[in-house]
Amino acid sequence: MKGTSQRPADIAVFLVEHGRLVEDALDRYLPSAGTSPQAVHAAMRHSVFAGGKRLRPILVMAAAEVTGLAPEDVLPSACAVELIHTYSLIHDDLPAMDDSPTRRGRPTCHVAFGEAMAVLAGDALHALAFELLARNAAVEGCSPARVLAAIAELGRSIGTAGMVGGQALDLLAAGAPPDATAVRRIHRLKTGSLIRAALRIGGILGDADPITLGALDRYGEHMGLAFQIVDDILDVVGEPSKLGKRTGSDATVAKATFPAVFGVEQSRRLAETGTRRAIDALAPLGARGDRLRDLASLLLAREH
Amino acid sequence: MKGTSQRPADIAVFLVEHGRLVEDALDRYLPSAGTSPQAVHAAMRHSVFAGGKRLRPILVMAAAEVTGLAPEDVLPSACAVELIHTYSLIHDDLPAMDDSPTRRGRPTCHVAFGEAMAVLAGDALHALAFELLARNAAVEGCSPARVLAAIAELGRSIGTAGMVGGQALDLLAAGAPPDATAVRRIHRLKTGSLIRAALRIGGILGDADPITLGALDRYGEHMGLAFQIVDDILDVVGEPSKLGKRTGSDATVAKATFPAVFGVEQSRRLAETGTRRAIDALAPLGARGDRLRDLASLLLAREH
Repeated sequence: MKGTSQRPADIAVFLVEHGRLVEDALDRYLPSAGTSPQAVHAAMRHSVFAGGKRLRPILVMAAAEVTGLAPEDVLPSACAVELIHTYSLIHDDLPAMDDSPTRRGRPTCHVAFGEAMAVLAGDALHALAFELLARNAAVEGCSPARVLAAIAELGRSIGTAGMVGGQALDLLAAGAPPDATAVRRIHRLKTGSLIRAALRIGGILGDADPITLGALDRYGEHMGLAFQIVDDILDVVGEPSKLGKRTGSDATVAKATFPAVFGVEQSRRLAETGTRRAIDALAPLGARGDRLRDLASLLLAREH
Repeated sequence: MKGTSQRPADIAVFLVEHGRLVEDALDRYLPSAGTSPQAVHAAMRHSVFAGGKRLRPILVMAAAEVTGLAPEDVLPSACAVELIHTYSLIHDDLPAMDDSPTRRGRPTCHVAFGEAMAVLAGDALHALAFELLARNAAVEGCSPARVLAAIAELGRSIGTAGMVGGQALDLLAAGAPPDATAVRRIHRLKTGSLIRAALRIGGILGDADPITLGALDRYGEHMGLAFQIVDDILDVVGEPSKLGKRTGSDATVAKATFPAVFGVEQSRRLAETGTRRAIDALAPLGARGDRLRDLASLLLAREH
């Protein structure tokens, strides 16, 4: 098992190369802002091309790599997961939800395009994601049955037992004193479900055997939680110039976060524990798990 | 070809029996309002069980019947189309969109559950619809490849080239003088796309040959437009007690409607022409098209 303290050069190269694949594919898959309805297409592109890390599509590709698939084999599905993530950010930012004016240093979708177009842009990305997943069956070597299983996985992970459920609990918990059980549950559903689904979808498309799929699943579970804890910590202590938003914004509205419940130092330790557990879960994969090990370490050490 | 003036008894029986199948299946497929997150589940059920006609799932089943499938064979997909229709009504009713306080005589979702829960209920129904479609592959005789084609069809029909595009154009046209070309285009996208998709999905799941699928497609196109014209007319002249909403509500906000452009009498003639074209499109199906012929006649003559 590799340590968590070093960042191998090849993971940085992997991120740059796969990130570029995703950027180019998203540009091809999204309707042009010059075609009707222009306002919705422009709003979709505003939010999709807002400087995100592309973590989720990279996880789909990294999980597929474990099963022997090339990144191109799962590119439509990887982009589908990113479109779902983007739709959820647009809707979460709405005035009736988190009411966020900026994200990554730019105006949020409803500030730039109005609330109606933001709702519709989110809805259109949501629909396009499933259309893209269905299209992945056109890639040689991806059987229709496996693509269907990936679609069912995504649908489940973003419904009321997953992402939407987490956002609902987060909204309903706002203002109440933060509570450890509630915070874990909200994070597991709101962020964790889609990250876990990204890993499972990569595995399912590659026809992973049950042991491999189980390892990807547990890795996703622990890494997803660690990722969100680091996000919470960066919101408290990060440099605004690197984050592109005001730090402390979670605290001002008494949101359920790890630092609010455990403090920053204890939260750091929990993120380290989660990362270690994620890496431990990869043990059955041997060397095939190296990429995901490196990725977990890198995400723990990130500054934005 | 049957005439358009009579309502055969068997189409009424067909509607009641198939409507009951849909009601029962929706109740099974939707999460219980007693499970967490209760507010979202209750909001989903509030809007799904609001007395809708279940036209779209019935069209999926009627198109599948043309290919020889039983209604049970396509029940998950039929319900999926109804969930998409319901999600679109919830989001269209939002304050930032059409700002509708009531629908079918009851408070709209955001009035009953708040705006945040309404956005999330729509999003959850949207995701559940695709999960249900994927689940249709578990039905004996529905090949994964055909289910994937149905998913791609639904995704396309509700994106910016379909339903969402129509709603965007409708919002952007509000307040401008009504224009014949714009009204046709908005109706074709906003209502027509999903109705046409319902018929195509039934055909695709039943592995319809190209001539049958073409007939279903053209039927859907003309019938969908006629259906929306009748809706517009009923909004002007219908009895509020039968419609469950204030009549004239479209006129008060200068919405793009057929009566606003063509007047009520000319709109009636256009609805009749659309219905006749829909019935004519079924010619290649012979007697297999009888059910859809009866349905088109019945929808033209309806009073709510």
